[in-house]
Amino acid sequence: MRWALLAIWVLVAKATASNTGSNKTLHSSNEPGDGLPTNFGIVLFPEFQALDVFGPLDALNLLSLGRKLNLSIIAETLDPISTQVRSPEINKFGSSFAEAIVPTHTFKTAPPLEVLIIPGGYGTFAPTVGPVLEYIKRTYPSLKYVLTVCTGSDLLARTGILDGRYATTNKQMYNVIIQNGPKVKWVPEARWVVDGNVWTSSGVSAGIDLTYAFIEAVYGNVLGNMVSEGMEYVRNIDWRKDPFAHLVTGSK
Amino acid sequence: MRWALLAIWVLVAKATASNTGSNKTLHSSNEPGDGLPTNFGIVLFPEFQALDVFGPLDALNLLSLGRKLNLSIIAETLDPISTQVRSPEINKFGSSFAEAIVPTHTFKTAPPLEVLIIPGGYGTFAPTVGPVLEYIKRTYPSLKYVLTVCTGSDLLARTGILDGRYATTNKQMYNVIIQNGPKVKWVPEARWVVDGNVWTSSGVSAGIDLTYAFIEAVYGNVLGNMVSEGMEYVRNIDWRKDPFAHLVTGSK
Repeated sequence: MRWALLAIWVLVAKATASNTGSNKTLHSSNEPGDGLPTNFGIVLFPEFQALDVFGPLDALNLLSLGRKLNLSIIAETLDPISTQVRSPEINKFGSSFAEAIVPTHTFKTAPPLEVLIIPGGYGTFAPTVGPVLEYIKRTYPSLKYVLTVCTGSDLLARTGILDGRYATTNKQMYNVIIQNGPKVKWVPEARWVVDGNVWTSSGVSAGIDLTYAFIEAVYGNVLGNMVSEGMEYVRNIDWRKDPFAHLVTGSK
Repeated sequence: MRWALLAIWVLVAKATASNTGSNKTLHSSNEPGDGLPTNFGIVLFPEFQALDVFGPLDALNLLSLGRKLNLSIIAETLDPISTQVRSPEINKFGSSFAEAIVPTHTFKTAPPLEVLIIPGGYGTFAPTVGPVLEYIKRTYPSLKYVLTVCTGSDLLARTGILDGRYATTNKQMYNVIIQNGPKVKWVPEARWVVDGNVWTSSGVSAGIDLTYAFIEAVYGNVLGNMVSEGMEYVRNIDWRKDPFAHLVTGSK
């Protein structure tokens, strides 16, 4: 066990040392005034898509070992929230296959945030999603960044925040979602899209690539590389290269 | 909302229809006697790595919409289990950045399983991991398959189940972990390794590639493609191609 802790410590220390030449340094994490985001939040709702949440969050879990970060998991109540698909039309074989996550805050008790992450999933289409939309709408003006994954951009579109902006979304659901945001400049072929402080990704796994691009842009590539090596993740680094754009046509 | 449900239903139905020519058909999910695994379990322990768990599980979440699957999330107690890193040597900036998952069963109440998934994370090095090892050791003989992600193979190695088998593990921790399994045929350059009914992957994200390979091998490529398109995941399909093998040398 001591060996293991030592090895991990060496890896973190190595990243610290090699980062001192950059403007966006690891050392700046000890300086509260460096202006880089510390306080992250993610909204959750029933039937969220697990990887929409845990792709970005696990990259940030690792980043939080390289500089101080805080996470709030925000939902309507503090009850655990399940991924379980409820519609028998979709869960047509009656599978009992789901995971439940514990929120840390409600929409009423959530602290001030700098970055809000909005995941997708079947739950974005539920009629009960109103309080999520209200929270996003009321919180956005005080954020530095908002990141959406998959059909999370559908929620953001329905608040009006995406109006006039370039954005993307899940490709299988593309032709459905664009109807909910007629004033959004939807991009059918993009792994992710950045417009101002709004970052939107394509479906599920694309949220991981978006998060790496975000970490690199905001915190610098030394921390970005530390995280992608730690996760042994093979990044898709070009936002314009979308291997699933053909699904947009396919789902017409 | 009706539009959305319809679109999803069409996608699932399309996969069902296009699969009827295969031996490993989606229709077989309606036949309990087809012999393919239905009952999955995953062991959890404090300080698990989130993506080790949710990469594989979210692929299986989607698979569970294509055939009947059940999931048990198994831990020492039913209390939520957090990813929070506890060592101040590792969480050196005092980040509060973690997610907590709710188990469905304890090691004593877990139902019979066909597939057990063992994730990794800093928690695999904790001195409290004994009950996890005992559960794995006692459950393995009745399993059809065991899958490990990242340092999850360290746990499997310490039960003796990997003795004499080819296996791989996290590449940054490789030189630490192989000391815990001196009789294991460790493979330093592999995205994942299959030996009999034991599937072991490299670090974190490699668990997603392992799961896709497993789905394809066990349930057929129609369901495999349905899942990878649904997740918009760019697969690493060659188990021998390991973009992070250089980390093994680097951590010496």
